[in-house]
This record gives sequence, C-alpha cells and structure tokens, in this order.
Amino acid sequence: MREDYVVTYRGGIVENRHRVHAAVVDAEGRLLYALGNPMRQTLARSAAKPAQALAILETNGVERYGFDDADLALMCASHSSEERHIARTRTMLSKIEAEEADLRCGGHPSLSETVNRSWIKQDYTPTAVCSNCSGKHVGMIAGARAIGTGVEGYHLPDHPMQVLVKRTVAELCDLESQDVEWGIDGCNLPTPAFPLDRLARIYAKLASAADGVDGGEESSPRDVALARIFQAMARHPEMVAGEGRYCTVLMRAFDGALIGKLGADASYAIGVRASHDTRRLGADGALGISVKVEDGNIEILYAVVTEILEQLGIGSPELRGELATFHHPKRVNTMGVSTGGVSFPFQLRGSEPEGERTCPAALVQ
Amino acid sequence: MREDYVVTYRGGIVENRHRVHAAVVDAEGRLLYALGNPMRQTLARSAAKPAQALAILETNGVERYGFDDADLALMCASHSSEERHIARTRTMLSKIEAEEADLRCGGHPSLSETVNRSWIKQDYTPTAVCSNCSGKHVGMIAGARAIGTGVEGYHLPDHPMQVLVKRTVAELCDLESQDVEWGIDGCNLPTPAFPLDRLARIYAKLASAADGVDGGEESSPRDVALARIFQAMARHPEMVAGEGRYCTVLMRAFDGALIGKLGADASYAIGVRASHDTRRLGADGALGISVKVEDGNIEILYAVVTEILEQLGIGSPELRGELATFHHPKRVNTMGVSTGGVSFPFQLRGSEPEGERTCPAALVQ
Repeated sequence: MREDYVVTYRGGIVENRHRVHAAVVDAEGRLLYALGNPMRQTLARSAAKPAQALAILETNGVERYGFDDADLALMCASHSSEERHIARTRTMLSKIEAEEADLRCGGHPSLSETVNRSWIKQDYTPTAVCSNCSGKHVGMIAGARAIGTGVEGYHLPDHPMQVLVKRTVAELCDLESQDVEWGIDGCNLPTPAFPLDRLARIYAKLASAADGVDGGEESSPRDVALARIFQAMARHPEMVAGEGRYCTVLMRAFDGALIGKLGADASYAIGVRASHDTRRLGADGALGISVKVEDGNIEILYAVVTEILEQLGIGSPELRGELATFHHPKRVNTMGVSTGGVSFPFQLRGSEPEGERTCPAALVQ
Repeated sequence: MREDYVVTYRGGIVENRHRVHAAVVDAEGRLLYALGNPMRQTLARSAAKPAQALAILETNGVERYGFDDADLALMCASHSSEERHIARTRTMLSKIEAEEADLRCGGHPSLSETVNRSWIKQDYTPTAVCSNCSGKHVGMIAGARAIGTGVEGYHLPDHPMQVLVKRTVAELCDLESQDVEWGIDGCNLPTPAFPLDRLARIYAKLASAADGVDGGEESSPRDVALARIFQAMARHPEMVAGEGRYCTVLMRAFDGALIGKLGADASYAIGVRASHDTRRLGADGALGISVKVEDGNIEILYAVVTEILEQLGIGSPELRGELATFHHPKRVNTMGVSTGGVSFPFQLRGSEPEGERTCPAALVQ
C-alpha cells in the first residue's frame, strides 16, 4: 500500500507531515482513483449523516411531520449554531411536538469562532438545541415516532430507530450489517465505520439518484429519497455548515453540481453529478469522493480535498478558486510575515492496471 | 527506520494514528533510547528558547539590566498571557528603558482559554506584550544593547544578536553553524531545525550543568549560565507556561528534578538531573529527552511525553499521576458518555545491540 502525505514547511524545512487516504468511485462502487489506503476502515462520523437521514426519510417521518427541504438539510448538517440553525431546530421540535429536553445530545462550543465570541460576550451557555447535530436528533425522534416506537432511548444502539439506521447504512454501503462497525459519536448517536471507499460509494449514489430523478428516469423510492437528500443539501448549503465554513463555501461555489460533507476527525465525502468531468475521469455517471486524514487534522483535510478536486479537474479553475484560502492556508506569523506553506507531493493514482488509465492530472483540460 | 504511533480509538475502532519520534540521550549526546526516527530534522520552535536564552545570558545583558531568575524563566517561556506574564513583560521593558513599540512580535489569542474568555468579555485586543514569546523578545533587545549594536531589526536573521544566537545554538548542539537550518517563528524571530536527538542533548546539558554547579564542581562560565537557566525554569514553572498548562504542571510535580518545554507544532524537550533513575537507564549523569509528533498535534504530544516518562520509569507513579489527565485525555461526548481513548502501542527501544540493553520498562522498579 502506498503512503501519501500532505507536508507543511517553514522556511523550506519540513515541519509536519499528514498521511492521507482517498477513494474516487462511481455509483457502482468501482474504484477509479486513490490515495494512500482507499480501503482504510474509517469512522465516517458526520459524513454519514445523509445516510442516517435516508433512514429517517424512509420512516415517512419527514412527510408526516411536514419537514421541508431546509429541515432535511439541517438533519444532514454539522452546523455552526448560528441563530438560523438554532431557530430552525426549535421550529422542527415544535413540528413533532417535542421539547429540547427530549434531545439526547448536549451543548458544546460552536464550530464558528464568531458565534463563540458572541456567546462568551453574552455569558451564554449552549444547550442541546445548539448542538451541531441538532437537526439529526430531531429527525431521529421523528423517525422513532413514525415507526411507532417510544422516543425514550432513541439514541441507543438497540433502539428500533437505530436498528433501522444500521440496516440502511449497511445497504447503502453494499455491506452485510455485521460488516459495518459502530462507535458512539460526539453527539451521542451511533456512528458507523467501514472501508473508506464505501463512504465515496454512498455519495456517488446520492449524486446518481439526483441525476436519475432529474433526467426523468423511472426511479425506485430509495433513489427518490436519495435525490431529495442531495437536492436539500445542494440548495441549502448554509444549513449544512455555516458562514465561511468549507462545506457551505464548496456547495455554494459548485451551485448544485456536487454536495460535500465534513466528518469529525477529518473525514470528508463528496458526491458529484454526472458531467463532462466525471465521464473524462472514467465514470459512467456520477462520482463519489471520500477522504480521511490519518491524524484527524481538519485544516489539512480541507486543503487535501481541494487539491483532489484540482487533480481530478472537477469544475473550472475560477470556480475552484473560491476555495483558494482552504487549498493553500496562509502561514503568516503574528507580524504578518509569511513563514511557510502547505504542499501536496502526491498524485492520485488510477486503480486500473498501468497503461489502461493515466493519472487524472494529465486529463485535465 | 521503525515507525511508532499513538492511536486514538472510538468504540474499539481505530480513529486516528499519530506518528511519533523521540530521542533519549545523556549529556555527551549518546543515544540511549528512541522512538520512530530519533534523527528526524526537526524545527525546535519554542523548545529552543533555553538555548536562545543562553546567548542572551552570555552577552551579559541579564546582569547588566538587573533581570532576575523569574525574568529569565519568562525569556524561556511560551506563556499564557496571564496578568503576571504581561506585568512582568512590562517591568522587563522598563528595566531596559524600552517600550512595547520596540517589540517585533505581535499579539495573538492566548494559549489559555480562560484568558481568552476574559479578553473577549472585555473586548480586549492583545498586543505585543501579550505575545507568549514576550520575554524572549525583551531578552533579545537587552542582548543587542549589551553587545553594543542597534536594537533596530533585532529579530532579523542577519542582526548581530541573531548571528550570536545561531552560533550559540550550533555549539550547544555540537554541530557546525551551517548544519543548523533556520526558519521564521510565529513570533517573528528565527527558529532552528536540527536532528531531534540534538534537542535532547541541549536539555541533557542544561540538567548536567545544574548537577555540576550544585555539586560544587569547577564549572565553565557556559555551564554556570546553563545551570542558571535550568534553575530559573525549575523554580518558576508558572512563568514558563501558565495555570493548568503541561510544562507548568510537569515542573511543579517534579519539583526541581527536571525541566520541560513545549515547542509549537508538537515538539517537546525535557532535561532530567542525575538520579537513581538516570543511572538505571544507562546515563552517567543527566538525561535529555526530545519528542516530536509528526503531524503537530499537541494533545497527543503531552500524552506521549507522559507515556515516555512512564516507560522510562522517571519519578514515582504517584508523581507521574499528577499528569494523568494529559496521559489519558478524556474522550467523553457532549452528554458525558465515554466514547474511546488513546493507546500507546510502542515501546522505547534501546540503541545498543540487542542483548546489551533491555527495554526500559523491564527496568522500572
């Protein structure tokens, strides 16, 4: 297995190295390109939220309680606890006639420093509705009600709602249930682990379903649900993360052509709708991309995800330019002097035998 | 070269892996134990401060301007910008009749979240005197004055004061000047890079000098200066970091038996005075320990430094117990549920041929 690294340097001297893994697959799960170990067993964390949201959608809880697409986007979010996220969480709770006390997540500092500063100034202690996972938790309660089980313990691994989530996630990964491992997430819900390429496969399916439904193809109920999740995220990027955050900036820039989602400890997944780019890269239709930084560094994750988009040539240079500050994070000191930078001494490799597919950079127009 | 890792896990599943390097040497620079690559070319960052302080001491600037040992400890510090650190910086500036505007470092958020919260509440914007490196900067100005050069540009690589620092650091490392590389630090001063074992050697020399001076040995002026730096740090641990910070807790716990200093991007160095422990480990006298986490993660650094002290059996278990929260950082979620932990699947290896020295853990009483 090859080792690939992102390198940070100071004055031309290597400072840190971050091992990275990536998988690029099509909707059938065929591995097209890779970095590091594309089969690394990886805790998807919040990058699994669209798959968890699928389980909620399939309970009919979203229809039954009148959740709209922005609500659905919030179920897929790791939001910044901005006012709009907290207000929407409260509205979602009222739609299911539940209360904050029913949530089994806790408050925590915001993922946005701007929000944190305002909380500190107001002596505000964040509570459950401020959790970056609040939308997912309301969704799980709605799902539990929709399948007719008690809400009590909705977050526990053996609760019928979580049993349903486990089955749905395994199906999306094309794995047997016992082949998906589960830990407990920061927000107190179960979180799955599976080979990294399976995360890419989930996102390729999301994008592929959006292609199918938009193209008027006859789609299965599951594909209709997957397409709805894709569109909810693509149309409400401000709900999925927040002002200035990578997921929001990425999805705004690509304007419906892809969705992207962060997972804690530096996992990331992108679903790209079929285009000239995806065909050039060897996919029949949509593409899925998944990335994990071995040490969990999120600044490095954003840089490497952007580098991968560049190496694959997805979107125009102008469009990717909107991600420039994430791609090459500034390394300036307290006097504004540039002290170093980040480099990417790797090249995505094709999974086909040598000669059958050249490296993607060579294909970039 | 062997690869050694710290592993974090969630629900029994590997989440992140952090590659680590360490060197344990005696005052002659003999490598006794190692992890990863003990010769890794490493930017020492603030772990080099005691060596930079030696250059200042040798200008006679410390005597000339009446700095005391707590001031000297602040020159070796990456402090938390607590009131006592800022007040001492101002007093030190007045001792050299300089002003904050003469400092060529800038303000930045404090290394202490408690201090940051109070700054945000007061709408306070930190300035140069708040820099965690403020003491070193005042020291450099004092040194520049003492050698009779202008203060202007004291932070620049070609300024006579920095030329002196470069020579001093190379001498302490037992390297030719051209074999030490230099970058620009976060605080705007030059910062050296050299093989990791050389950082351990500097700290072994600091501890060895303290042993020599305390033991009434005839000591060179350099050894007297090194001993003074050791004692200043050991006696004023609250100046070197701040409330609750690792360096301060470590030095308070060991009460003069060692000094320890953090460098940004996860380098660390410890100097241990001669004892039953150091002799058991094969040193004639004092020991030096240096550590670098390849990806720059400081939480993992503190855990691995503490694990190394445990594997070496330095200090009593009760004493090392004061570092327990750094050794095994809590992994609990927003509802207080334990989600995983940190493990150290490595063993320091002796540098001698197999059979001549067993692993240190086997020697721990």
